[in-house]
Order: sequence, then structure tokens, then C-alpha cells
Amino acid sequence: MISIETKQDLLRSGERLDDLQRNGYQIIQHPGRFCFGMDAVLLAGFAGGSIRPGMRVLDLGTGTGILPILLAGRTKAARLVGLEIQPESVDMACRSVKLNHLEERIEIVEGDIRKADRLFAASSFDVVTSNPPYMIGQHGLQNPEAPKAIARHEVLCSFEDVARAAAKLVRPGGSFFLVHRPFRLAEIMGTLLRYGLEPKRMRLVHPFPDREPNMVLLLAVRGARSRLQVEKPLILFEEPGVYTEEIRELYGY
Amino acid sequence: MISIETKQDLLRSGERLDDLQRNGYQIIQHPGRFCFGMDAVLLAGFAGGSIRPGMRVLDLGTGTGILPILLAGRTKAARLVGLEIQPESVDMACRSVKLNHLEERIEIVEGDIRKADRLFAASSFDVVTSNPPYMIGQHGLQNPEAPKAIARHEVLCSFEDVARAAAKLVRPGGSFFLVHRPFRLAEIMGTLLRYGLEPKRMRLVHPFPDREPNMVLLLAVRGARSRLQVEKPLILFEEPGVYTEEIRELYGY
Repeated sequence: MISIETKQDLLRSGERLDDLQRNGYQIIQHPGRFCFGMDAVLLAGFAGGSIRPGMRVLDLGTGTGILPILLAGRTKAARLVGLEIQPESVDMACRSVKLNHLEERIEIVEGDIRKADRLFAASSFDVVTSNPPYMIGQHGLQNPEAPKAIARHEVLCSFEDVARAAAKLVRPGGSFFLVHRPFRLAEIMGTLLRYGLEPKRMRLVHPFPDREPNMVLLLAVRGARSRLQVEKPLILFEEPGVYTEEIRELYGY
Repeated sequence: MISIETKQDLLRSGERLDDLQRNGYQIIQHPGRFCFGMDAVLLAGFAGGSIRPGMRVLDLGTGTGILPILLAGRTKAARLVGLEIQPESVDMACRSVKLNHLEERIEIVEGDIRKADRLFAASSFDVVTSNPPYMIGQHGLQNPEAPKAIARHEVLCSFEDVARAAAKLVRPGGSFFLVHRPFRLAEIMGTLLRYGLEPKRMRLVHPFPDREPNMVLLLAVRGARSRLQVEKPLILFEEPGVYTEEIRELYGY
């Protein structure tokens, strides 16, 4: 049991501590920077069931480490590595790992996705995950160096950079799980295929059953044969403000 | 008004006449051969709204001509050409065109999709449609020369053959509408992209809201920029045996 004093020691000015509703885990976030959203929780749910005990998992662009921490709670993965380019996010992620006593399982590495193949051995992970920036380039950005801009826009890496790194670092037959925006689906599938990552499962996320999807969850498997399982829609809300049972379970309510 | 006698003159032994619930149009089909299904009706609905007066439309693998006939009813297209390789289907399609007095607008051409670029001038259509065979190769086929096998399996043409023909025959900026099975979606998108056909609209068709999709409707535009609109799900049944209002409207009930 960590004492209140220790928790406070790990928090910096302006940061807050959010409960993850699983194993008592918490995460340090800074409201002025990028905070994790529902997409990270959905991706952890989508990937979690396929991660078997002892597996090695790499999260590309881990931010504050939300995905490794959620997956540490959901799975018996032996090793969860989060790669992140922004030093402030790396620092927050490391403190969250410490706060949850997950130092034995989670390692946060500061580095560039475009150079990930120099940081890790080829084919050295069973699973790669990524919740990459959704927006193309720096279009419309006032301040492309702001932390939120880097997390949301492809300022420092493109989807192709992410796919290239995943294809290199996941073992043959290994899984690449990602969440993205539906409007980029064709480009994403084309890019995955070019890097030998075969789309195998897809689930579209709709706010309501009769609305367009606003997120897509994808599993691509390195070197698999071509056959995609399109799953039933994932619906977020039963009515405005009320999550569906599936979402409530995912959040651990 | 066509007389009962004339209708019967156009029907051959074993064939039946089905009402299309639109403009009084009917279609000649043979239950022992391939009969059109809901996919053709959904594709006509999906494509119909985008076909403007005066446009030239080509249907690749038209079978009994169901798509040109439905689109003749739904749109003011000037010219609808159906290409079909099976002579018996071409014969039935021609008689259905005559039966509906559509000779001025619809032309049925007997020919091979793989040689379509020798039959028609490059970029000579505003819109190409196709409801191609869904199943890969001849796997599990007892009789790969049977008409139903040719309509359902890629015995005589692959999806790549269809995409190549569409990319050649549709004008730059023109539309390629197709219906297919979701399990082939990744391959389809990859193939479309390789031929410069950019996926722009996608709609998944689900039997019920909480079930996996069993069909996918796609629009790809030749030479368009990358951005896919994933539409709300198209649901077939409200309850077992009862179509949703959208489907009832599509069928003209």
C-alpha cells in the first residue's frame, strides 16, 4: 500500500491523479497537456483478450503510459514497453508506473517511432499497440510544437512511420492493434498491406446505433493470409449521457 | 402497354417473370440459374442517388441485367451498358430490356471483363457498377462451369480483373460502385488503391443492429484524394422476417 505522502511526492504542480477502475491503478495526467480518452480504453479492451500470459507488448507513442497500464491490469503480459517522444510525457508515465508498482512489468522508453528499429531488436514483440495521432500533418495548427498538437496531429510521425515500426518490431504472426479515425480507413489498410500487416479484425465504434462511426479498432497480423473479420458495431451510448453495458464493463463501472 | 401475349413470347421454358416494384419494370430469371438478390437492390440504392441525368453507366458482370434495369428506373442516366460473359444470361437480359421497352437506354454486351478495355473506349463512362463474384477461386466447387458457380465464384474473373477494368473505363473523377463481402474488405481496398480508385464512401450492411455485417457497399472515385466517409450501418431487419423502413423503401413496398 502506497502512502498518501508518496502519492503526493509523485505528483507535480498542475497534474491530477485519475482512477482507472482496475486493480486500483491510477494515472498521472496534466489537463493542460494531452489526457487519455475513450479511444485508449477501447483499444485496451479490443487488444486485451488476445494478449496471453508471458507475452511481450510494445506501445508506440504511449503518451502518459495509459495503454501499458491498462493492459497490465487486463492481461498477464510479462513485459509492456511504452515508447514516447515527448520528455514530459515520459516523465509522467514513469511516475505513474512507479505509483502503481508496475516497474517489474512496464518500461517507458523515450524515443522516436521513426527510429524505433534502433531501440529494439527486430521481431522482438508478440504484440504492438498504437493510438497514434489521427490528424494529417500540421493542417490548421496554430502551434505545432504544443504537446496536444503532437499527440493529435502527425507532426512528428505519420501513420506510415507507425506501421513501418510495427512491422519491423512485431514477430511474424504477431499482432498489431490500433485505434484510428474511420475517414482514414482506406489509407490505413493500404499502408498496413504494404508493410505485410494483414488486417484480420475490425470493429467500428458508433456513438449511437444509427450514427456514423467515429473510431475504428483494427487488428493486423504480420504475414497472415487475407481474410478480415468485421465485427458487430461497438455502440457507446444507450441514450445521451448513458453508456451501453459493454462500455460500462470496459470502464469497470 | 405490352400485351400478355408479347410477355409470354419473351419468356422461355423454366423462366419466371419478377416484378421490380418500380416503373412497372419486370425481370426474366431462371430459378435453376443465378437469380438476383438483395445485394443488387442495395447497390442500385447506394449508387442511384449519385447518377445524374445524361450520365453513361457501365455494369461489369451484369448477369440478367438487374442493375441496369433498376438504375433505369431510379435515375435519368442516358446510357446503361451491361457487360456479361455468359450467353444465356445475356439472352435473358436482352429479353428483359425489350420487355421493359428500355432498348433506347440499356445495351447488353456479351464479353469478358478481362478484355473490357477492347470493347469500350478508355474513360468512356461516368459511372461503373459491379456486383462481382464474392468467393475466391474455385474452392469447394463441384462444377465450376455451372452458371451459378460463375456468378458466385471467381472462376472467370478475379476482383483485380474487375478493378482493372473499372479503372480503365471510368473517366477521371468518375465513380465505381460495388457490393462485396466484408471478409474481403482489406484486399478490396488494397486493390482499389493500386488501380487509382480511391475509396470515398463505405456502408456496411447488417442483418440486425447487433450482428456482424454480411455485405459492404463501396464507392471508389478515380484519382480522388484520400478521405473515406464511413456511413451509418444499413440494417436489413427490424425483427426476423420484417424489413426495416429503409429496406422497404428501397424495394418500393
